[in-house]
Amino acid sequence: MDVLLNAANAALLLAHDIRRDAEIALLLLGPPDPPRLVRIRGDRVRAYQPDIRSNAALVRRALERGSRIEREVSPGVTSSKSSLDETLDRLGPPFVYLKEGGPDARETGLPDAATFVLSDNMDLTAEEERTVLARGASTIGLGPMSLHTEHAIAILHNELDRRRR
Amino acid sequence: MDVLLNAANAALLLAHDIRRDAEIALLLLGPPDPPRLVRIRGDRVRAYQPDIRSNAALVRRALERGSRIEREVSPGVTSSKSSLDETLDRLGPPFVYLKEGGPDARETGLPDAATFVLSDNMDLTAEEERTVLARGASTIGLGPMSLHTEHAIAILHNELDRRRR
Repeated sequence: MDVLLNAANAALLLAHDIRRDAEIALLLLGPPDPPRLVRIRGDRVRAYQPDIRSNAALVRRALERGSRIEREVSPGVTSSKSSLDETLDRLGPPFVYLKEGGPDARETGLPDAATFVLSDNMDLTAEEERTVLARGASTIGLGPMSLHTEHAIAILHNELDRRRR
Repeated sequence: MDVLLNAANAALLLAHDIRRDAEIALLLLGPPDPPRLVRIRGDRVRAYQPDIRSNAALVRRALERGSRIEREVSPGVTSSKSSLDETLDRLGPPFVYLKEGGPDARETGLPDAATFVLSDNMDLTAEEERTVLARGASTIGLGPMSLHTEHAIAILHNELDRRRR
C-alpha cells in the first residue's frame, strides 16, 4: 500500500499545493479482492495531505466498496472493480507507457494531457504490457537507472512542467 | 519526521538496490533538542528499507545519542550534535544549494561529487542561506514548480544519473 500512497503523493502534491490538473489511478491487481481501482482527482479531492497514514485511510475507505459501477465515495475519490482493460477505458487515450530502457522522455514528443501507465516495483506482466500497447500507447524511459514508481512520477512531472511553462 | 525519511529514501533508494555512492545528512534544527545531525551512508547502511516506519526507528535510535562527537551508532548511520556550519564542515565542498528559481540544473555545470543542500518544506532562513553561500555554494533550480524535498532529490539524482552514464 505504501508504494501506491507514495505514488499518489508524487502525482498530486506540490510543496504547498495540490496539482489540480492531475489525477492518480491506483489499480490493485493482487489479493485479497482484485481487481480494484481507486482514482483520486486533484481538482476535487479535499483534505489530501502529504501524510500517507491519513491517505491510507482515504484509500481503505474507498476499497470497502466492491461494485463494478464506479462511484465517488468521497470528494474526488472514486472506487470500482475494474480490470486493467476497463481501467484504461475509464481513463482514456492517449496512453504513454513508462518502461525501463524506453526512448528517453526528454527527447520524445509527449502529449500535453495523457494517461501515463507505470508499474509498481514489479514490472507489468507480458499480458498487461500487451493490453497497454494494444491501445496505441507510446513507450518512454526516464534515464539510466531503475527507479521507484514515486520517483519516476516526480521526474515525469518535472519534464511536463518544463514543457508547459 | 516523514519529510526527512522520504527525503532519505529519495536519496538512497533505487528500485531494487541502494545508491552506494550516495549519503543523506538529516539536519534537525527544530525542537526538542537542536541541532541534531544524522547521516546515512548508502555504501555502509544495512537493512535499509523503503518502509519509512522501520527507517524511523533507525533514525530515532540515532537521535538518542546527544554528543557533539560524531559516532557511528549502527552500520552506516552516524549521529552528532552539529550546527549547520559544523554539518557543512563534516560534509565538505563543493556545495550546491537547491533553491526555487535558481539557474536551471539542466543548463548548469554540476560537480560530479558534491554536497547538495536542500531545505524541508520551509525555506532556509536568510542566515542559514548566508552560511551556505559563504562556502562558495553554487545555486541551482529544478524547473518551474515548487516541489517537495523528496521529489526534488529524485529529479536531481536523475540529472546526475544522466550525466554519469
